[in-house]
Amino acid sequence: MAPSAIIVGAGLGGSLLAHFLGQRGWSVRVFERRGDPRARGYVGGRSINLAISARGLHALERASLDREVREHGIRMPGRMLHARDGQTAFVPYSADPTRAIMSFSRSALNMLLIRAAAQHPNVELTFDHRCTGLDERAGTATFEGPGGARVDATADLVVGADGAFSAVRAHMEKRERFDYSQHSLAHGYKELSIPPVAAGPHAPFAMDPKALHIWPRGGSMMIALPNPDGSFTCTLFWPYEPVPGKDEASFAAVPDGQAALERFRREYADAVPLMPELVAEYDRNPIGSLVTIRCWPWAMGGRFALLGDAAHAIVPFYGQGANASFEDCEALVDALERHPGDVARAIDEYQHERKPNADAIADMALDNFVEMRDRTAHFGFKLKKKLDHALNRLMPRAFVPLYDLVSFTTVPYAAARERARRQDRIVLDAAIALGALLVVGAGVAAAWLKGGAS
Amino acid sequence: MAPSAIIVGAGLGGSLLAHFLGQRGWSVRVFERRGDPRARGYVGGRSINLAISARGLHALERASLDREVREHGIRMPGRMLHARDGQTAFVPYSADPTRAIMSFSRSALNMLLIRAAAQHPNVELTFDHRCTGLDERAGTATFEGPGGARVDATADLVVGADGAFSAVRAHMEKRERFDYSQHSLAHGYKELSIPPVAAGPHAPFAMDPKALHIWPRGGSMMIALPNPDGSFTCTLFWPYEPVPGKDEASFAAVPDGQAALERFRREYADAVPLMPELVAEYDRNPIGSLVTIRCWPWAMGGRFALLGDAAHAIVPFYGQGANASFEDCEALVDALERHPGDVARAIDEYQHERKPNADAIADMALDNFVEMRDRTAHFGFKLKKKLDHALNRLMPRAFVPLYDLVSFTTVPYAAARERARRQDRIVLDAAIALGALLVVGAGVAAAWLKGGAS
Repeated sequence: MAPSAIIVGAGLGGSLLAHFLGQRGWSVRVFERRGDPRARGYVGGRSINLAISARGLHALERASLDREVREHGIRMPGRMLHARDGQTAFVPYSADPTRAIMSFSRSALNMLLIRAAAQHPNVELTFDHRCTGLDERAGTATFEGPGGARVDATADLVVGADGAFSAVRAHMEKRERFDYSQHSLAHGYKELSIPPVAAGPHAPFAMDPKALHIWPRGGSMMIALPNPDGSFTCTLFWPYEPVPGKDEASFAAVPDGQAALERFRREYADAVPLMPELVAEYDRNPIGSLVTIRCWPWAMGGRFALLGDAAHAIVPFYGQGANASFEDCEALVDALERHPGDVARAIDEYQHERKPNADAIADMALDNFVEMRDRTAHFGFKLKKKLDHALNRLMPRAFVPLYDLVSFTTVPYAAARERARRQDRIVLDAAIALGALLVVGAGVAAAWLKGGAS
Repeated sequence: MAPSAIIVGAGLGGSLLAHFLGQRGWSVRVFERRGDPRARGYVGGRSINLAISARGLHALERASLDREVREHGIRMPGRMLHARDGQTAFVPYSADPTRAIMSFSRSALNMLLIRAAAQHPNVELTFDHRCTGLDERAGTATFEGPGGARVDATADLVVGADGAFSAVRAHMEKRERFDYSQHSLAHGYKELSIPPVAAGPHAPFAMDPKALHIWPRGGSMMIALPNPDGSFTCTLFWPYEPVPGKDEASFAAVPDGQAALERFRREYADAVPLMPELVAEYDRNPIGSLVTIRCWPWAMGGRFALLGDAAHAIVPFYGQGANASFEDCEALVDALERHPGDVARAIDEYQHERKPNADAIADMALDNFVEMRDRTAHFGFKLKKKLDHALNRLMPRAFVPLYDLVSFTTVPYAAARERARRQDRIVLDAAIALGALLVVGAGVAAAWLKGGAS
């Protein structure tokens, strides 16, 4: 008999995993809390668009689903930095100009994955069903459908791919020795938009679409990603509360759209003419929180496992959330293939392989917030990127900058971070050695000159 | 009209707070999940006995309840260290021999506090009711009683004093921006016992009752606290899983009482003759986990607040869990008295005052596990304590060792830790200066001698 799986959640990770297992002949049932987006339109969770990079494409390629993203995604080979005075500077992501992260619509990608999963006769998708319980001993998951109808389901493998506020994880939390943390940033976010334009050098785009736009303002920032219809989705990252002693924008200090407009005129002046809906959108759109969730274990009872945001919600500043979930899917499927008939061993290997990498990208995503909102605004940032890219061109195999390792390779996140640290130490040592050599050289030259003069 | 409070939980913190507020004329309703211990006997949560020190006594004194603990508690002025070979060494807790922590029964203390609270006509205690919901906007707490009967209650102040697995906190967790972490040690604990004896130098006690007994074994340990009936409650702290590369006991590697007995004969040999029930108790008693819980905020909606383990569950290694809860009660009552009619402000001040102290004692309790199980076994430990006590005798006001600050003063935990760090730095600096002085002195002496000889 074919092995069976229950997947809780038909978001990005859940639907890709359903497709992977469907391809491999598993009998799969997917339960999703929300309605069927194919029938009723997509009801978004988080942001409107996301960045897909090498890891995501690698997983989609294995699922034969990368074509869509490669064809219709918008290539962003670098950042466009907007200074306070409206000056812009383009800083490439990589020394290799063919490398780019891809802006893609979350809803389009999710629909693509749901359709791919649904095409397998051995994959059954059930919407409008929320997970209400797990029974570790019986190995069952319980769901509640419309009108309170109850479904008890059993399978060899039960995967919680139900997002940052995972119901599956909530049930796992109740057992002893479940380590868990959720930590929110002091910053929240609000989505705004830049609509398409009729004329201009980049029409229908109001700005160059071949970049991820950043307005770095020290303690806060705005970013904008292009959409295929010519619009940009902007995300404003501001602290909730005023920062004592600093004249910095905060959601509390800027209570409404009119106040936001005044603030924008001072700090994001070049964006104001591009944002005709700013006042209305600021008033209308909610403030989202930015949470990092870590937990352990990810596997329980030899049968239940967590995946994606349910296991490791991260902040969006490295654009790796979806990519990390897709890597989870690959790792889980590979482990299941290594140990046919032994789900317990497979999910244990999966969790031990992925946990250090999830922790690493969670940390790097937090670090990158500081880089994006603050360091990009300083001259040293461009210089450091130039040096990194020059070293990479000189030694393409030996020196690969961290951003490249994370976004343009599939080197595991933890290994990527470790390698970047090692590289930075070597560069520092080399700089010191070079400095010492120059001092010695100058001394020798001075002695020689002095000798010549005497 | 008198201000009103709902307290969820009639454990140590909840019942002391009810008594405090009752004394101050508040209209108080306490809801407890368990049955009434006065009618049905005490159903224990955690350990059988606990250590009460200066902070706990200070709070109990304010409640006129310290007499019982002072009279019937068993004074433990130091630790008795049991080496592998059965040799024992007594190391006092303080330079001042009159200072002692008190071993007291958790159930007796809880009953004392419940009776004190219940004596106020304005305090109503309701047992067998569990908290099932909070409504932040309406300001109500909902409880479910026997047979599913529902009670909705409203008050000016609602306090979650319902322990490490707090239902009140669980409801607060659902809101955005609630930071939370729970982290379990790799060690679990199991309670064992040493019964009273008919004869012997300490009869009815099998060992000296004037000490907290420790069997430090590097990665693990056993401790024993005296009870008024002449018995000792032992707690075995072992890792759950074997530690790779070490021949260390673990609950997984010692699966039953017979195996435990063999292990004890090798590592806790002097205790074996005192523990006739060892095999049966090891088989019967569960393994408890040791969790540290941190969260923020502790206050919500201007009305709801957390207290004690619900806000900050800590590991037991500094014997400060109950003491910290009692300090919370004092801080909350003081804040409410500073701001009559303004609960929102009072609970905000309370949480900001207590949070850094709760974090500090959580960290110190974790640190103290290493001290108890490992450092106490080394010669340097006794030397360091001797030095600390000598300095304290020399400069009783200027130099107070950390253990004294935590256990024998009410200096806030965070300030105590900071002060101990400063003191240790000064001692280190003084030692270096003294060393330098000796070197210089020796040089001068040598020069003088050389001069004399020439």
